[in-house]
Amino acid sequence: MKSYNVAIMGATGAVGQQMKEQLEKRNFPVRNIVFLASSRSAGQEITFKGETYTVQEAVPESFEGIDIALFSAGGSISEKFAPEAVKRGAVVIDNTSAFRMDKEVPLVVPEVNKADLRLHKGIIANPNCSTIQMVCALQPLKEQYGLSKVIVSTYQAVSGAGVNAINELKKQSADFDNAKHAEASVLPVKSADRHYPIAFNAIPQIDQFTDNGYTYEEMKMINETKKIMHDETLSVAATCVRLPVVTGHSESLYVELDGAPTVEEVRQAIANAPGVELMDDPSNQVYPMPLMAAGLDEVFVGRIRADLDNPRGFHLWVVSDNLVKGAALNSVQIAEALVGEQII
Amino acid sequence: MKSYNVAIMGATGAVGQQMKEQLEKRNFPVRNIVFLASSRSAGQEITFKGETYTVQEAVPESFEGIDIALFSAGGSISEKFAPEAVKRGAVVIDNTSAFRMDKEVPLVVPEVNKADLRLHKGIIANPNCSTIQMVCALQPLKEQYGLSKVIVSTYQAVSGAGVNAINELKKQSADFDNAKHAEASVLPVKSADRHYPIAFNAIPQIDQFTDNGYTYEEMKMINETKKIMHDETLSVAATCVRLPVVTGHSESLYVELDGAPTVEEVRQAIANAPGVELMDDPSNQVYPMPLMAAGLDEVFVGRIRADLDNPRGFHLWVVSDNLVKGAALNSVQIAEALVGEQII
Repeated sequence: MKSYNVAIMGATGAVGQQMKEQLEKRNFPVRNIVFLASSRSAGQEITFKGETYTVQEAVPESFEGIDIALFSAGGSISEKFAPEAVKRGAVVIDNTSAFRMDKEVPLVVPEVNKADLRLHKGIIANPNCSTIQMVCALQPLKEQYGLSKVIVSTYQAVSGAGVNAINELKKQSADFDNAKHAEASVLPVKSADRHYPIAFNAIPQIDQFTDNGYTYEEMKMINETKKIMHDETLSVAATCVRLPVVTGHSESLYVELDGAPTVEEVRQAIANAPGVELMDDPSNQVYPMPLMAAGLDEVFVGRIRADLDNPRGFHLWVVSDNLVKGAALNSVQIAEALVGEQII
Repeated sequence: MKSYNVAIMGATGAVGQQMKEQLEKRNFPVRNIVFLASSRSAGQEITFKGETYTVQEAVPESFEGIDIALFSAGGSISEKFAPEAVKRGAVVIDNTSAFRMDKEVPLVVPEVNKADLRLHKGIIANPNCSTIQMVCALQPLKEQYGLSKVIVSTYQAVSGAGVNAINELKKQSADFDNAKHAEASVLPVKSADRHYPIAFNAIPQIDQFTDNGYTYEEMKMINETKKIMHDETLSVAATCVRLPVVTGHSESLYVELDGAPTVEEVRQAIANAPGVELMDDPSNQVYPMPLMAAGLDEVFVGRIRADLDNPRGFHLWVVSDNLVKGAALNSVQIAEALVGEQII
């Protein structure tokens, strides 16, 4: 069986570590692996399939001989090094937002638009975490009934903002009685002027604001969904909110279909979809929750209900681990699809 | 100035205490006050305007001579004692769901439908907490531009489930590393078969499920909103979610208007509305959050955005203290309106 030289760029980050674990767990055909990071993290040790590797500082030459490079070290690092990796013959699977809306770059969730991988010119973008789990739930509905409108409100975990955000939540949570005056220096955005406590709070800002009053996170969900689903006429609206949850994004979705299936037909479409698990039994209080989805691969869908006024309208509750299917797993699935479809 | 004999039924509960504080703070014209509760809580002492009162066990005769009785002791207590109070000449302002959808009972948020108070036959119902703050934000939009559709996803605090839920959140929050296996015995519903941890989680169930897959909390928001706003044709959909927040409900609202105002016009309508405070300056990261709204009277509205596809569509983020405007304050405002409009 053919095997591949793989590099992980940003190997010491939360997503980089998940990428390594997914490669191990899914037994991806790795010949050699290289762990890359900034000079600050270089020298750390990482164990992969029982062998110990030293993290190297990334330089353009790091990508010599690499077949597949998984990037998750921030947008500016991707902008700098992804072209260098491509120049040296690697296919880059980039988990940052640097190239996602580039017309030359496929933006891929394998369950939805695997065929787009054939159009790649060296770089393939991994969508935003909150987009990935949403389109996994939307795709079976679009395929079977047509999809015209999506309104999503998110309930997002702090792990999407990195390990500092997790530590801040942990520290603040320990001081229940001082919640209102807890020190904050990470959320909503590390580089922003103002920081707010996340413990016992809900912050309706993820990423910076754009000029139209939406945040970048909200605009990512809107624009990426249209690109992945190949439908510029699809109406998408998003409100993105950060919660005191460690890992696992939840989404309250309202969808309008072209057809008017029964709730049971919608449930069946979700149950039969790849990568998605139906978890919907109200009479037994069965529905997905982030605390239970953390660490798991699937996109869980429950609380499926018919809108009471619109026969084409449905409500769904979608939960998935934002570091797994929302990031590392999807990147590794893209690599698997490149191999499986003989694109690489 | 005329003054009134007031009773608080459920005086030792979280809302009962807030009712007492609102009566003090707003200087409601109280002649005599009686604090009532079940036999279990009788004998406790409560201070009102510097004087100490002993909580009495409620019996039908407790309401002799009472002008206004504020009830917040659970639906079955209201069903039993409210008619007894009315029989003795009191006007009952009931904070439970017992009579809310009764056609003979006005369901009132003074900023929205104060005129309905004139139709009372002894009992006036205080709406559900999540409904009250929503209709306060919707009313100015309906008045100025007409309102056809509302889709709401809630982010609700545990204080709505009582002091046991607050204690459970506090205990679970102290054990960050054990979140997934935390002991739970209160949420989502005390009497339900299954309980789930709320710390570092989001539970998409508030109250029990009805047969159509919606919870009672969701159906309350849908039905109460139509009743308060006098519009059975208004399309309302709700998804209600419990969060690890102590006090303060947040709501992500999508509304469709009959007209197509600018975002600035929508902001002005909100800014000018009674009981509502505009808190919407994205460039300075100003938006409402539950941790900051706790303990305050207002309904705060921010994140106002035009839908990108529908010129009649707008998104709003609405936050208020569920124990204050969501319960005790609204009940006391109803009492004030009864006095002010000379209905009592």
